[in-house]
Amino acid sequence: MQSEVLEGVSAVDRMLDRLSRPLLPGVLRIQQGIVRATHEFMFKKGLTQVMPLMLSPITDPLNHGVVDASIAYADTRWSLTKSMIFHKQLALMHPELESIYIMSPNVRLEFADRAETGRHLFEFTQIDFEFKNKDRFFVMEFMEDLVNFVFARLNAELPELLLELRGELLPLYEKWPVYRTEKLEAALGPDYEMLQSKLSDTPFWLLNHKREFYDKEDQLKPGTYFNYDLVWPLGFGEGLSGAERENEYKQILKRMTETGTNKEIFKDYLEVAKQGKLPRTAGAGFGVERMTRFICKINDIDDVTVFPRKPGHASIF
Amino acid sequence: MQSEVLEGVSAVDRMLDRLSRPLLPGVLRIQQGIVRATHEFMFKKGLTQVMPLMLSPITDPLNHGVVDASIAYADTRWSLTKSMIFHKQLALMHPELESIYIMSPNVRLEFADRAETGRHLFEFTQIDFEFKNKDRFFVMEFMEDLVNFVFARLNAELPELLLELRGELLPLYEKWPVYRTEKLEAALGPDYEMLQSKLSDTPFWLLNHKREFYDKEDQLKPGTYFNYDLVWPLGFGEGLSGAERENEYKQILKRMTETGTNKEIFKDYLEVAKQGKLPRTAGAGFGVERMTRFICKINDIDDVTVFPRKPGHASIF
Repeated sequence: MQSEVLEGVSAVDRMLDRLSRPLLPGVLRIQQGIVRATHEFMFKKGLTQVMPLMLSPITDPLNHGVVDASIAYADTRWSLTKSMIFHKQLALMHPELESIYIMSPNVRLEFADRAETGRHLFEFTQIDFEFKNKDRFFVMEFMEDLVNFVFARLNAELPELLLELRGELLPLYEKWPVYRTEKLEAALGPDYEMLQSKLSDTPFWLLNHKREFYDKEDQLKPGTYFNYDLVWPLGFGEGLSGAERENEYKQILKRMTETGTNKEIFKDYLEVAKQGKLPRTAGAGFGVERMTRFICKINDIDDVTVFPRKPGHASIF
Repeated sequence: MQSEVLEGVSAVDRMLDRLSRPLLPGVLRIQQGIVRATHEFMFKKGLTQVMPLMLSPITDPLNHGVVDASIAYADTRWSLTKSMIFHKQLALMHPELESIYIMSPNVRLEFADRAETGRHLFEFTQIDFEFKNKDRFFVMEFMEDLVNFVFARLNAELPELLLELRGELLPLYEKWPVYRTEKLEAALGPDYEMLQSKLSDTPFWLLNHKREFYDKEDQLKPGTYFNYDLVWPLGFGEGLSGAERENEYKQILKRMTETGTNKEIFKDYLEVAKQGKLPRTAGAGFGVERMTRFICKINDIDDVTVFPRKPGHASIF
């Protein structure tokens, strides 16, 4: 883990160098512009903001293994939130809330094999949003509009900084291309997502991922799913995951069995579903640091953050 | 802990009731207004936003006991961040960053004796800000301006909602009164802070608290400190803590000894101080839910949040 460390340079000295790197203030200003523009877009579109939670008895099981992170308090085992997916769904049970968003740090203690992907941090900020009684087409269009709104705002507010960091202003996109995982895999092989990202010069949608139980299955084509990922172009890779959600008890049970989800942990969530109280929703979440990375054309996402959070690596602060 | 629970009402049913309570959407909209106006104020004043961290090898030791919350990962013990105090100070080492702010969830696993204070949650959102080469007078005036900016914005954007929730629009304040702990305690006894809060109808500053090592000591009057708390009036109590910071190695060591801080945990931080690299800063952090509570005149802060986070109490979500 420390093999790349230069002899004689202490962890403190390396941190001091990192904290003084010349590009940092500009990158932070771009990121701040993303956050401000997103808050404004959400407000204009009528979404209600909910504050993030770091702890919950249930959290996103994710579709890949990470180190378990939980603590004991008040006779309860609390997991660090890997996303706000269930809290979004549950908050939308309120009859007067139609759409919400949450800006939340997410902890995902990835294994060290993700250290060098350039796009993984073991904690990062996600902007999670969810709509009641909307479908995937609505959410995809919403996100396309959000990206154009944010990019236009950055072009207007920080043009010199954009020219300095990426050599040009940000593009505004027409409708994004849409691909399906099974077709892309047949054409490009198992590494299809990254290959298509490298081949593309605009963001695109990638539909139909086999993953967590809460992504809605297409009842007309079992084994396919109403989910959608935004993939940034030019090799920057996945930048948002979203889906219509399962909200019917029997279907959730079936999907939990298929995905090997621990039903005991989710017993209260299942009880809400059994009572028929889970609303029909669709939504998504995107990584703030990943959007910043794409905009600033930064190879290693760890260069977006003030303090290092590379999977499997220690940090002194 | 469950003694107040009605017989026969399940935890799920109580949660469903909570999630549907009529006042919730309005309270969330006020809170969202606070957050949006604060982002705008920070941007106007030139502060750079930094993303929050949930995990760090060092975090605020606080001046009162809480349950320890930490996890193991990458050969390191990571504490859940109780505040971003050290990260603010360290980020300001960058020669081009003069002022920063962080909107961050903070986890403070309070003992159950704080369950009924009306103003404690075991996780909440703090807005933390810090300035390089500024003093307490600057920060106090900054916060007074911020409160007036936020209140004026809410009056303009959400007047009907304010009338519904608090019966009147928000006041705009002149300079806030300033008290010192030792004088107030002499006049009012040990519960002086809450008594003065109840006696007051405007926010006030309370100076000179004996607490964490990082609050700067007055060298001309050892045993007194250049720190300041905002106390909300009408019994709503403390709403912001701030201070000029200790940044000199010898003084930090002295203060750590006095406060019983574990120097081994802070060895890398102490090394930065020893190298003379810690900048001179002053700042503060305020609780978003506490400001929301004051504005909406809500007795129990747990009624501000979507999901319950009362000290010592379990929650199913």
